[in-house]
Amino acid sequence: MRLPAETMDRLLDTWPVGILASVGSQGQPHQVPVVFARVGSRLWSPVDGKPKAAGELGRVRNLRSNPRASLLLDHYDEDWTRLWWLRVDLNARVFEPPDPDADPEVMAAVAALRGKYPQYHDIPVLRAPATLLALDPVAVTGWCASRDAISML
Amino acid sequence: MRLPAETMDRLLDTWPVGILASVGSQGQPHQVPVVFARVGSRLWSPVDGKPKAAGELGRVRNLRSNPRASLLLDHYDEDWTRLWWLRVDLNARVFEPPDPDADPEVMAAVAALRGKYPQYHDIPVLRAPATLLALDPVAVTGWCASRDAISML
Repeated sequence: MRLPAETMDRLLDTWPVGILASVGSQGQPHQVPVVFARVGSRLWSPVDGKPKAAGELGRVRNLRSNPRASLLLDHYDEDWTRLWWLRVDLNARVFEPPDPDADPEVMAAVAALRGKYPQYHDIPVLRAPATLLALDPVAVTGWCASRDAISML
Repeated sequence: MRLPAETMDRLLDTWPVGILASVGSQGQPHQVPVVFARVGSRLWSPVDGKPKAAGELGRVRNLRSNPRASLLLDHYDEDWTRLWWLRVDLNARVFEPPDPDADPEVMAAVAALRGKYPQYHDIPVLRAPATLLALDPVAVTGWCASRDAISML
Protein backbone atom coordinates (compact mmCIF):
# COMPACT_ATOMS: atom_id res chain seq x y z
CA MET A 1 0.00 0.00 0.00
CA ARG A 2 1.06 3.59 -0.52
CA LEU A 3 2.55 5.59 2.32
CA PRO A 4 0.16 8.33 3.43
CA ALA A 5 1.23 11.82 2.36
CA GLU A 6 1.58 13.04 5.95
CA THR A 7 3.84 10.09 6.78
CA MET A 8 6.04 10.87 3.80
CA ASP A 9 6.24 14.49 4.88
CA ARG A 10 7.23 13.51 8.40
CA LEU A 11 9.85 11.06 7.16
CA LEU A 12 11.43 13.69 4.91
CA ASP A 13 11.68 16.00 7.91
CA THR A 14 12.92 13.52 10.49
CA TRP A 15 14.43 10.34 9.01
CA PRO A 16 18.19 10.60 9.55
CA VAL A 17 19.65 8.89 6.49
CA GLY A 18 18.96 8.37 2.83
CA ILE A 19 20.74 6.53 0.04
CA LEU A 20 21.59 8.97 -2.73
CA ALA A 21 21.85 7.52 -6.22
CA SER A 22 23.43 9.35 -9.13
CA VAL A 23 24.50 8.14 -12.57
CA GLY A 24 27.99 8.10 -14.09
CA SER A 25 28.87 9.03 -17.65
CA GLN A 26 28.74 5.40 -18.78
CA GLY A 27 25.27 4.82 -17.29
CA GLN A 28 26.63 3.24 -14.10
CA PRO A 29 24.58 4.01 -10.98
CA HIS A 30 26.47 5.25 -7.92
CA GLN A 31 25.08 5.07 -4.39
CA VAL A 32 26.16 6.48 -1.07
CA PRO A 33 24.36 7.06 2.24
CA VAL A 34 23.89 10.74 3.03
CA VAL A 35 22.49 12.94 5.75
CA PHE A 36 20.05 15.61 4.67
CA ALA A 37 17.67 18.25 5.99
CA ARG A 38 14.62 19.83 4.42
CA VAL A 39 14.06 23.57 4.03
CA GLY A 40 10.74 24.25 2.32
CA SER A 41 10.50 21.60 -0.37
CA ARG A 42 14.26 21.43 -0.98
CA LEU A 43 16.51 18.85 0.62
CA TRP A 44 20.07 19.82 1.48
CA SER A 45 22.93 17.39 1.86
CA PRO A 46 26.40 18.54 2.92
CA VAL A 47 29.26 16.91 1.07
CA ASP A 48 31.96 17.70 3.60
CA GLY A 49 30.16 17.34 6.88
CA LYS A 50 31.57 14.00 8.01
CA PRO A 51 34.58 11.78 7.39
CA LYS A 52 34.53 10.13 3.99
CA ALA A 53 36.51 7.72 1.90
CA ALA A 54 38.64 8.82 -1.00
CA GLY A 55 36.56 8.84 -4.16
CA GLU A 56 33.23 9.26 -2.45
CA LEU A 57 32.91 12.49 -4.37
CA GLY A 58 31.77 10.43 -7.32
CA ARG A 59 28.31 11.77 -6.54
CA VAL A 60 29.49 15.35 -7.12
CA ARG A 61 31.19 14.50 -10.41
CA ASN A 62 28.11 12.59 -11.58
CA LEU A 63 25.59 15.26 -10.59
CA ARG A 64 27.50 18.00 -12.37
CA SER A 65 26.95 16.23 -15.70
CA ASN A 66 23.60 14.53 -14.95
CA PRO A 67 21.43 16.24 -12.33
CA ARG A 68 19.00 13.31 -12.11
CA ALA A 69 19.25 11.68 -8.71
CA SER A 70 17.18 9.72 -6.26
CA LEU A 71 17.09 9.43 -2.50
CA LEU A 72 15.79 6.31 -0.83
CA LEU A 73 14.68 6.13 2.80
CA ASP A 74 13.81 2.70 4.09
CA HIS A 75 13.23 0.49 7.06
CA TYR A 76 14.06 -3.20 7.07
CA ASP A 77 12.41 -5.46 9.60
CA GLU A 78 12.48 -9.22 10.12
CA ASP A 79 8.70 -8.90 10.24
CA TRP A 80 8.02 -8.24 6.58
CA THR A 81 4.62 -6.71 7.38
CA ARG A 82 6.62 -3.78 8.78
CA LEU A 83 8.65 -2.95 5.70
CA TRP A 84 8.43 0.47 4.16
CA TRP A 85 10.39 2.65 1.79
CA LEU A 86 10.17 6.15 0.43
CA ARG A 87 11.82 7.18 -2.82
CA VAL A 88 12.32 10.75 -3.99
CA ASP A 89 13.23 11.42 -7.60
CA LEU A 90 15.34 14.52 -7.56
CA ASN A 91 16.89 17.23 -9.59
CA ALA A 92 20.26 17.90 -7.98
CA ARG A 93 22.53 20.92 -8.05
CA VAL A 94 26.01 21.21 -6.60
CA PHE A 95 26.28 24.35 -4.44
CA GLU A 96 29.73 25.77 -3.72
CA PRO A 97 29.08 29.06 -1.94
CA PRO A 98 32.26 31.18 -1.90
CA ASP A 99 31.16 32.75 1.40
CA PRO A 100 28.67 30.38 3.12
CA ASP A 101 28.09 32.77 6.03
CA ALA A 102 26.87 35.46 3.65
CA ASP A 103 24.45 33.26 1.73
CA PRO A 104 21.00 33.24 3.39
CA GLU A 105 19.92 30.05 1.62
CA VAL A 106 23.06 28.20 2.71
CA MET A 107 22.74 29.57 6.23
CA ALA A 108 19.19 28.22 6.42
CA ALA A 109 20.39 24.83 5.15
CA VAL A 110 23.19 24.70 7.72
CA ALA A 111 20.77 25.70 10.49
CA ALA A 112 18.36 22.95 9.43
CA LEU A 113 21.16 20.37 9.41
CA ARG A 114 22.34 21.51 12.86
CA GLY A 115 18.79 21.35 14.14
CA LYS A 116 18.23 17.84 12.82
CA TYR A 117 21.60 16.32 13.78
CA PRO A 118 22.96 16.88 17.29
CA GLN A 119 26.20 15.35 15.98
CA TYR A 120 26.88 18.70 14.30
CA HIS A 121 27.31 20.30 17.71
CA ASP A 122 30.81 18.85 17.70
CA ILE A 123 31.77 18.81 14.05
CA PRO A 124 31.34 21.44 11.35
CA VAL A 125 28.53 21.02 8.81
CA LEU A 126 30.69 22.53 6.08
CA ARG A 127 34.41 22.23 5.51
CA ALA A 128 36.46 24.23 3.06
CA PRO A 129 35.69 24.34 0.24
CA ALA A 130 32.04 24.43 1.34
CA THR A 131 29.97 22.10 -0.82
CA LEU A 132 26.32 21.13 -0.53
CA LEU A 133 23.88 19.32 -2.73
CA ALA A 134 20.56 21.08 -3.29
CA LEU A 135 18.04 18.35 -4.04
CA ASP A 136 14.70 19.34 -5.50
CA PRO A 137 12.00 16.65 -5.45
CA VAL A 138 10.41 15.89 -8.80
CA ALA A 139 8.34 12.91 -7.60
CA VAL A 140 7.84 11.10 -4.31
CA THR A 141 6.81 7.45 -4.07
CA GLY A 142 6.23 5.63 -0.82
CA TRP A 143 5.32 2.03 -0.11
CA CYS A 144 4.56 0.07 3.03
CA ALA A 145 3.71 -3.59 3.47
CA SER A 146 0.82 -2.93 5.86
CA ARG A 147 -0.61 -0.41 8.29
CA ASP A 148 1.59 -1.98 10.96
CA ALA A 149 4.63 -0.72 9.10
CA ILE A 150 3.69 2.90 9.69
CA SER A 151 2.04 2.69 13.10
CA MET A 152 5.40 3.56 14.67
CA LEU A 153 6.25 6.43 12.34
CA MET B 1 38.72 3.53 6.48
CA ARG B 2 38.08 0.63 4.14
CA LEU B 3 36.01 -2.32 5.28
CA PRO B 4 38.19 -5.42 5.64
CA ALA B 5 37.68 -7.98 2.87
CA GLU B 6 36.45 -10.66 5.29
CA THR B 7 33.87 -8.26 6.73
CA MET B 8 32.61 -7.46 3.23
CA ASP B 9 32.36 -11.17 2.49
CA ARG B 10 30.40 -11.81 5.66
CA LEU B 11 28.05 -8.90 4.98
CA LEU B 12 27.30 -10.15 1.47
CA ASP B 13 26.42 -13.54 2.94
CA THR B 14 24.37 -12.39 5.92
CA TRP B 15 23.10 -8.80 5.66
CA PRO B 16 19.37 -9.04 5.01
CA VAL B 17 18.68 -6.06 2.77
CA GLY B 18 20.29 -3.99 0.06
CA ILE B 19 19.18 -1.01 -1.97
CA LEU B 20 19.28 -1.88 -5.65
CA ALA B 21 19.92 0.98 -8.07
CA SER B 22 19.28 0.78 -11.79
CA VAL B 23 19.10 3.46 -14.46
CA GLY B 24 16.15 4.39 -16.68
CA SER B 25 16.30 5.21 -20.35
CA GLN B 26 16.49 8.95 -19.68
CA GLY B 27 19.37 8.57 -17.22
CA GLN B 28 17.11 8.64 -14.15
CA PRO B 29 18.33 6.45 -11.29
CA HIS B 30 15.79 4.12 -9.71
CA GLN B 31 16.19 2.58 -6.25
CA VAL B 32 14.32 -0.08 -4.36
CA PRO B 33 15.17 -2.21 -1.32
CA VAL B 34 15.64 -5.89 -2.16
CA VAL B 35 16.40 -9.16 -0.44
CA PHE B 36 19.22 -11.21 -1.90
CA ALA B 37 21.32 -14.31 -1.31
CA ARG B 38 24.77 -15.21 -2.54
CA VAL B 39 25.66 -18.41 -4.39
CA GLY B 40 29.34 -18.46 -5.26
CA SER B 41 30.14 -14.92 -6.32
CA ARG B 42 26.68 -14.25 -7.76
CA LEU B 43 23.91 -12.50 -5.86
CA TRP B 44 20.31 -13.53 -6.54
CA SER B 45 17.31 -11.35 -5.86
CA PRO B 46 13.76 -12.62 -6.41
CA VAL B 47 11.41 -10.15 -8.01
CA ASP B 48 8.19 -11.80 -6.91
CA GLY B 49 9.03 -13.08 -3.47
CA LYS B 50 7.16 -10.54 -1.40
CA PRO B 51 4.27 -8.10 -1.74
CA LYS B 52 5.13 -5.11 -3.88
CA ALA B 53 3.60 -1.91 -5.12
CA ALA B 54 2.41 -1.47 -8.66
CA GLY B 55 5.23 -0.19 -10.81
CA GLU B 56 8.02 -1.52 -8.65
CA LEU B 57 9.07 -3.55 -11.65
CA GLY B 58 10.84 -0.44 -12.91
CA ARG B 59 14.03 -2.23 -11.96
CA VAL B 60 13.28 -5.08 -14.37
CA ARG B 61 12.48 -2.73 -17.23
CA ASN B 62 15.63 -0.72 -16.57
CA LEU B 63 17.95 -3.70 -16.26
CA ARG B 64 16.77 -5.22 -19.52
CA SER B 65 18.08 -2.21 -21.42
CA ASN B 66 20.99 -1.25 -19.14
CA PRO B 67 22.49 -4.09 -17.08
CA ARG B 68 24.59 -1.73 -14.94
CA ALA B 69 23.33 -1.79 -11.38
CA SER B 70 24.56 -1.28 -7.87
CA LEU B 71 23.60 -2.65 -4.49
CA LEU B 72 24.18 -0.71 -1.29
CA LEU B 73 24.26 -2.25 2.17
CA ASP B 74 24.53 0.19 5.04
CA HIS B 75 24.14 0.79 8.71
CA TYR B 76 23.10 4.13 10.15
CA ASP B 77 23.86 4.92 13.76
CA GLU B 78 23.41 8.04 15.85
CA ASP B 79 27.03 7.47 16.84
CA TRP B 80 28.72 8.47 13.61
CA THR B 81 31.87 6.53 14.51
CA ARG B 82 29.77 3.41 13.87
CA LEU B 83 28.69 4.18 10.33
CA TRP B 84 29.56 1.79 7.54
CA TRP B 85 28.43 1.04 4.03
CA LEU B 86 29.23 -1.49 1.35
CA ARG B 87 28.58 -0.86 -2.33
CA VAL B 88 28.66 -3.51 -5.03
CA ASP B 89 28.81 -2.42 -8.67
CA LEU B 90 26.95 -5.07 -10.60
CA ASN B 91 26.19 -6.49 -13.96
CA ALA B 92 22.54 -7.58 -13.79
CA ARG B 93 20.59 -10.08 -15.80
CA VAL B 94 16.86 -10.77 -15.64
CA PHE B 95 16.22 -14.51 -15.26
CA GLU B 96 12.81 -15.89 -16.21
CA PRO B 97 13.15 -19.67 -15.98
CA PRO B 98 10.22 -21.35 -17.75
CA ASP B 99 10.50 -24.30 -15.34
CA PRO B 100 12.27 -23.13 -12.15
CA ASP B 101 12.21 -26.59 -10.56
CA ALA B 102 14.19 -28.00 -13.47
CA ASP B 103 16.90 -25.35 -13.47
CA PRO B 104 19.77 -26.28 -11.11
CA GLU B 105 21.07 -22.73 -10.92
CA VAL B 106 17.65 -21.36 -10.02
CA MET B 107 17.10 -24.17 -7.53
CA ALA B 108 20.38 -23.28 -5.82
CA ALA B 109 19.34 -19.62 -5.72
CA VAL B 110 15.96 -20.47 -4.21
CA ALA B 111 17.61 -22.76 -1.64
CA ALA B 112 20.04 -19.98 -0.67
CA LEU B 113 17.18 -17.51 -0.28
CA ARG B 114 15.19 -19.98 1.84
CA GLY B 115 18.25 -20.64 3.97
CA LYS B 116 18.91 -16.96 4.54
CA TYR B 117 15.32 -15.82 5.14
CA PRO B 118 13.09 -17.80 7.54
CA GLN B 119 10.24 -15.63 6.22
CA TYR B 120 10.26 -17.83 3.11
CA HIS B 121 9.02 -20.76 5.18
CA ASP B 122 5.57 -19.23 4.90
CA ILE B 123 5.63 -17.50 1.53
CA PRO B 124 6.94 -18.66 -1.84
CA VAL B 125 10.29 -17.33 -3.08
CA LEU B 126 9.05 -17.31 -6.66
CA ARG B 127 5.61 -16.54 -8.00
CA ALA B 128 4.44 -17.09 -11.53
CA PRO B 129 5.93 -15.99 -13.79
CA ALA B 130 9.15 -16.80 -11.90
CA THR B 131 11.57 -13.89 -12.14
CA LEU B 132 14.94 -13.40 -10.49
CA LEU B 133 17.75 -10.96 -10.90
CA ALA B 134 21.20 -12.49 -11.28
CA LEU B 135 23.65 -9.87 -10.02
CA ASP B 136 27.33 -10.33 -10.82
CA PRO B 137 29.73 -8.12 -8.85
CA VAL B 138 32.10 -6.05 -10.94
CA ALA B 139 33.58 -4.07 -8.03
CA VAL B 140 33.06 -3.96 -4.28
CA THR B 141 33.76 -0.88 -2.15
CA GLY B 142 33.33 -0.73 1.58
CA TRP B 143 33.77 2.11 4.03
CA CYS B 144 33.52 2.41 7.80
CA ALA B 145 33.99 5.43 10.03
CA SER B 146 36.15 3.59 12.56
CA ARG B 147 37.06 0.16 13.89
CA ASP B 148 34.11 0.51 16.29
CA ALA B 149 31.78 0.40 13.31
CA ILE B 150 32.76 -3.14 12.46
CA SER B 151 33.40 -4.59 15.90
CA MET B 152 29.80 -5.84 15.96
CA LEU B 153 29.81 -7.30 12.45
